[in-house]
Amino acid sequence: MELYLIRHGIAEAQQTGIKDEERELTKEGKQKTEKVALRILKLGLKFDLIVTSPLVRARQTAEILLAFGLSSQLEESNYLAPHGHIFNWLDYWLKPKNFPENAQIALVGHEPCLSNWAEILLWGEAKDSLVLKKAGMIGVKLPEIGLPVGRSQLFWLTPPKYLL
Amino acid sequence: MELYLIRHGIAEAQQTGIKDEERELTKEGKQKTEKVALRILKLGLKFDLIVTSPLVRARQTAEILLAFGLSSQLEESNYLAPHGHIFNWLDYWLKPKNFPENAQIALVGHEPCLSNWAEILLWGEAKDSLVLKKAGMIGVKLPEIGLPVGRSQLFWLTPPKYLL
Repeated sequence: MELYLIRHGIAEAQQTGIKDEERELTKEGKQKTEKVALRILKLGLKFDLIVTSPLVRARQTAEILLAFGLSSQLEESNYLAPHGHIFNWLDYWLKPKNFPENAQIALVGHEPCLSNWAEILLWGEAKDSLVLKKAGMIGVKLPEIGLPVGRSQLFWLTPPKYLL
Repeated sequence: MELYLIRHGIAEAQQTGIKDEERELTKEGKQKTEKVALRILKLGLKFDLIVTSPLVRARQTAEILLAFGLSSQLEESNYLAPHGHIFNWLDYWLKPKNFPENAQIALVGHEPCLSNWAEILLWGEAKDSLVLKKAGMIGVKLPEIGLPVGRSQLFWLTPPKYLL
């Protein structure tokens, strides 16, 4: 299985009166995310499922991916909200879903969760060694057999500027 | 400083009568590497210096990058040949050269050296967790101060297919 960990696009700044979970993508954030989605489509990539954090800026990012035809399925999961833990996510998503071996799943969420999760999958622990920009992406291949923690492989990591 | 670790393109198979170090890029290998070079150029990237392994397949790859205007300087180093060790390379290249802080250096070489070196820079040890395809690239940012081993960051890793 391949996981594509995608960080939400540029969102409006934190300010009094707006709850963090309700912050929306800015105009620039939407446009950049659309360009990234178009490029991913042109690269021939499709996701069997997009799972998004319930926060508005992530949900809007996931909806752009969906609108560009990158998947026909979108789900929301609290496990992808900030401060989520990868082990909860792995328990919840990998075991009961029984995805086919070669499934391509996109997870839209937040930093530092996503890059830390990738590191845990690759090396078993997180050291903040992966740079994941807004609207950027990390591609991780899980092993065919056995637990993925510390045994997965990184096949792609890109900032959005190289997808425009 | 940013290091761009670039694996040589597809080369002719090992066969009797050809020394490993003399194997050349195939026609497909040259074409793919040229497409990758063109895309890197369009992305606005330039290297202050390209250092290549002395093996023919690496040298030819580096010469393609040079021919596309990605750098005006090419050097050859035995430290980038197969079985080279990153500590030798770091000693030799980083200390005496005194590159400017923001230098962008491309290293053209071989697997598993390049991906292992990147892992050592990021996490201090290599676990074969990074996939570097032929004509693919890994981008590593070294810390501004202090030793880079275990303290660098990965900002880009791409297979050639996403650069065509």
